[in-house]
Amino acid sequence: MSEAPLSFTAQETAYIARLNRNRQKAGDLRAANAGSTVMVSGWVFRYRDQGGLVFVDLRDRSGILQLVFDKSELKDRFDEAQALRGEFVIGVEGTLRKRAPEAVNAKLATGEVELLVKEFIILNRSRPLPFPIDEYSDVGEETRLRFRYLDLRRDEMRDAMILRSRLNQSIRRHLEGDGFIEVETPVLNKSTPEGARDFLVPSRLSPNKFYALPQSPQLFKQILMVAGFEKYFQIVKCFRDEDLRADRQPEFTQLDMEMSFVDEGVVTDTLEKMWRSVIKEVFEVQLPAEFPRMSHYDAVENYGTDRPDLRFDMKLVDIADIAQRSEFQVFKTAVEKGGRVKALCVPGGAELSRKDIDELTEWVKQDFKAGGLAWMKHEADGLKSVVSKFFNEDLLKELAVRTGSKPGDIIFFAGDKPKVVHDTLGNLRLRMAKRFNLIPENAWAIVWVEGFPLFERDADSGELASVHHPFTAPLDEHLDILFDEERFKKEGDKILSRAYDLVLNGSEIGGGSIRIHNAEMQLAVLRRLGINEEEAREKFGFLLDALSYGAPPHGGIAFGIDRVLTLFLHRESIRDVIAFPKTQKGFCLMSQSPSSVDVKQLQELRIRTIPLN
Amino acid sequence: MSEAPLSFTAQETAYIARLNRNRQKAGDLRAANAGSTVMVSGWVFRYRDQGGLVFVDLRDRSGILQLVFDKSELKDRFDEAQALRGEFVIGVEGTLRKRAPEAVNAKLATGEVELLVKEFIILNRSRPLPFPIDEYSDVGEETRLRFRYLDLRRDEMRDAMILRSRLNQSIRRHLEGDGFIEVETPVLNKSTPEGARDFLVPSRLSPNKFYALPQSPQLFKQILMVAGFEKYFQIVKCFRDEDLRADRQPEFTQLDMEMSFVDEGVVTDTLEKMWRSVIKEVFEVQLPAEFPRMSHYDAVENYGTDRPDLRFDMKLVDIADIAQRSEFQVFKTAVEKGGRVKALCVPGGAELSRKDIDELTEWVKQDFKAGGLAWMKHEADGLKSVVSKFFNEDLLKELAVRTGSKPGDIIFFAGDKPKVVHDTLGNLRLRMAKRFNLIPENAWAIVWVEGFPLFERDADSGELASVHHPFTAPLDEHLDILFDEERFKKEGDKILSRAYDLVLNGSEIGGGSIRIHNAEMQLAVLRRLGINEEEAREKFGFLLDALSYGAPPHGGIAFGIDRVLTLFLHRESIRDVIAFPKTQKGFCLMSQSPSSVDVKQLQELRIRTIPLN
Repeated sequence: MSEAPLSFTAQETAYIARLNRNRQKAGDLRAANAGSTVMVSGWVFRYRDQGGLVFVDLRDRSGILQLVFDKSELKDRFDEAQALRGEFVIGVEGTLRKRAPEAVNAKLATGEVELLVKEFIILNRSRPLPFPIDEYSDVGEETRLRFRYLDLRRDEMRDAMILRSRLNQSIRRHLEGDGFIEVETPVLNKSTPEGARDFLVPSRLSPNKFYALPQSPQLFKQILMVAGFEKYFQIVKCFRDEDLRADRQPEFTQLDMEMSFVDEGVVTDTLEKMWRSVIKEVFEVQLPAEFPRMSHYDAVENYGTDRPDLRFDMKLVDIADIAQRSEFQVFKTAVEKGGRVKALCVPGGAELSRKDIDELTEWVKQDFKAGGLAWMKHEADGLKSVVSKFFNEDLLKELAVRTGSKPGDIIFFAGDKPKVVHDTLGNLRLRMAKRFNLIPENAWAIVWVEGFPLFERDADSGELASVHHPFTAPLDEHLDILFDEERFKKEGDKILSRAYDLVLNGSEIGGGSIRIHNAEMQLAVLRRLGINEEEAREKFGFLLDALSYGAPPHGGIAFGIDRVLTLFLHRESIRDVIAFPKTQKGFCLMSQSPSSVDVKQLQELRIRTIPLN
Repeated sequence: MSEAPLSFTAQETAYIARLNRNRQKAGDLRAANAGSTVMVSGWVFRYRDQGGLVFVDLRDRSGILQLVFDKSELKDRFDEAQALRGEFVIGVEGTLRKRAPEAVNAKLATGEVELLVKEFIILNRSRPLPFPIDEYSDVGEETRLRFRYLDLRRDEMRDAMILRSRLNQSIRRHLEGDGFIEVETPVLNKSTPEGARDFLVPSRLSPNKFYALPQSPQLFKQILMVAGFEKYFQIVKCFRDEDLRADRQPEFTQLDMEMSFVDEGVVTDTLEKMWRSVIKEVFEVQLPAEFPRMSHYDAVENYGTDRPDLRFDMKLVDIADIAQRSEFQVFKTAVEKGGRVKALCVPGGAELSRKDIDELTEWVKQDFKAGGLAWMKHEADGLKSVVSKFFNEDLLKELAVRTGSKPGDIIFFAGDKPKVVHDTLGNLRLRMAKRFNLIPENAWAIVWVEGFPLFERDADSGELASVHHPFTAPLDEHLDILFDEERFKKEGDKILSRAYDLVLNGSEIGGGSIRIHNAEMQLAVLRRLGINEEEAREKFGFLLDALSYGAPPHGGIAFGIDRVLTLFLHRESIRDVIAFPKTQKGFCLMSQSPSSVDVKQLQELRIRTIPLN
């Protein structure tokens, strides 16, 4: 246990009050301030005892300042200075002076000065830390999360939190200036089985009923448009009870927006203006004057994914016609079965060893259900590999030309169902780009992806589901398919939606759409999703009603704030930009949450737990 | 069902896109704009067909503009104009012109102009409304909440939401400028049985365990101070599963703040500066240059409550000494038993009828457990009532002088346990002030109440509980009571805390304190609350640890944003400043939430409901 003083004398309290009132930011002091009396408070960051002198690097939120405790100055209080230890909290008064030229620390913003201590008070002590604040590279994430209050003292974490705050304020300032109103929508919501799994909250006042935490304020923001708010935004927590994948959190922060009397062009213009201004202000990055657009079709064809990383080229190339003229049965069969055959040329990839390639093969089999991974190295005398024998000289030359390969490159091939081909080569593209350093540093490639299908067929059940959500408007020119039951059965997945995603460096940072603003059309889309009118009214009755009372055309978007920060701060994980994140098991290691609760609490809620056997 | 168009032709879509891009704010148009071509979009607010002319008041978020559809201008499209109905959504293009002098509408900001329609398009139709938007005085709140999207179209609601947004932005702008960092704390929290009842969230990944929704981010903000953030704020949703009293909501919005290296003076200075600036900016109200301070003791003594309404005087007056010299046995007994006898003079109150007084007597008996309500009217010849006979002439004169009563006034008396006396007369004071219009309109009386007891004794169990919460620091000069078990037993309720509440017009709008920043002192306070070290470590282990690793002195506050808005907007209820409030039963009438959920959802969470018998 610490030996911190439990209380202060009246005199000490008065002195602390004086320090509190006159405290300056330690990190802001400069040579120009030399000679003045300065009061600072903060933490003992580094400590060095040199006989009659004690040097302390004092840390506060603004930075670091060197303090000098001089025995000849402090007399009988010098013992106390010698008793200081790391992370003790102190208040200090002294004279700021220039350091001797040889003592200047160029790495420190305050490196030309130091504070000669005249008076000080220990405000709190600290136990020895479980890990050092300043060098912690070998500290595991579990320990960092358990002692988050220490982890957050590190520069990287503090900077991330400060920039997070600035980003939020900058967004709000911009949107307020652009006529947007921030409206708070409820956290205690209605459960709708669509979409991901809900977190549920048992209601005590309505026993056996439940609230759900919002996956997004989708319906409420549409309601706000019906209510005539025209421009809404909110930076808001959303929740998904999913099995947490690598970089997901059960609660995450969304910039949620909706606008009335808009079409895709007005929405994307508004958002481009916002992001250009905000990103410039907060991260000093200049986004392009106009964000490029790409169709969902082109994204998948060329990059194998609907969130293409455009910082580098390396497109997927269709070689089905070449494969068909070859003797390579695997690919020929794939084409015959309606599949695709594509190639990916990796510049410099010929240096991959057999072992490397075997590993990649295992990976694409495991993760993307590929049957295997064919490849050819471009050697001095042309394309070579175990499969090159199935292609005659002309075809090999044609392959080299089509893929743009040069000596030293490797070409990978996939021939399979379209999804397998695109997943395999799309992911291989990213992995190879990292492996061969093909991604320029500090490049920012932003792109709108649009023209998504409205529905997609479930691979297992064959049923159609919404690609985005059931409130997304279809393209007007595809409505005839929607309203014709027979045509819909055959061509339902050809209807394109009015949705748009914003993709940055291969990550989806936002997604939205123009919404359905007409009750009949909304009912029609729900019907096509297998939801009859009765069920629709039970679940979304208030939306259907609202759409019948003068709903304006409207559309919006939601951006992932955690993701935007992670990208612009070059962090590994969204956990590094969240003050108190949870583990992949949804656990808070610091507060030990979730936890068991009193059976009395459950009784009041009229629920009981089903024990695990 | 509406007959809204399901789709638009390509030509119509292009026209709508042009309207979207060139749309002006209807409410901003003025005589200076006359002559120009103008495009507006919005709702048909009022409609008047005058033969060859149709007049429409078009409403958008910015205001109202009169449109003129002229048959001679529109030719064959005039039929469509005649088919417009209330709340249809239209886009319009026309020529803005000055109205004839006799047609000017001085009540309307745009009253000098009107738009002669050249071209228009119906964007959506509306069913006839369940209640009119513009005159709804007899619409019950249930209907308003059920059709909230219509209710929110009303000026009052739209203005409340716009001002709510402005208040939030103004607070954030001010605090950012003052060096505060906004940090988001988790919504999925640990349940702590202290305080009000938690909303629980079953965890699926940790079966039989639960998260709780935060009642406030108290521990997290203290952790942020230990982490060195120094100045934190957040506008954040908090949750309490209480039996909802008149004007409470299960989820409410708090401005949550915490600061390091501060004492009470620094905190209150910071907050006064903020509120002065924000309230001036948002509500154009000038708060005093220094907020007055009042001790908890004085507040209760003089006003019978810890949240005194200081817009008017009317203090409670102690008359125990006079009562003791009287023959009025009820009061004499009260004093002998250690109770209090106090009086309240209501200027002009003599006009209360016997029936009025009987009603008041019933009320104070019911609501405040008073034994009865004694009173005297100050008539031309002195104080009169059924109890005046127990007081001799001199005592009656003394009473008049002490209470400052004049002819025409009434004096109420209460003699009982202190709490009963203060509750009775404190509430009577408020009720009488309203009854006799003693509260000046547009007065803003703000006051810090401080010097609260740290603990209060439970009336039933006799046990001590925290007045604020167990993390509130005691006054240094009362620590000797805290640490002396024997003294504590007798005098525990004499320890004062370092808490402060901010009270505006008799409503508590914020409360906070300087916190305990020392682990040993925190353990001592928890021990005095009957929580031993083991239990303390289980519940608050991470806080106790954090306090041992260099916690700075810190303190903070939380303000109720809903309450602040309700007061400054002169609204009846916080429901009038919340976009989607719940009823007193915690029900959302619009979305019908909470609701039953699939048994499959409960199975996944490993809970089952206990049916009501």
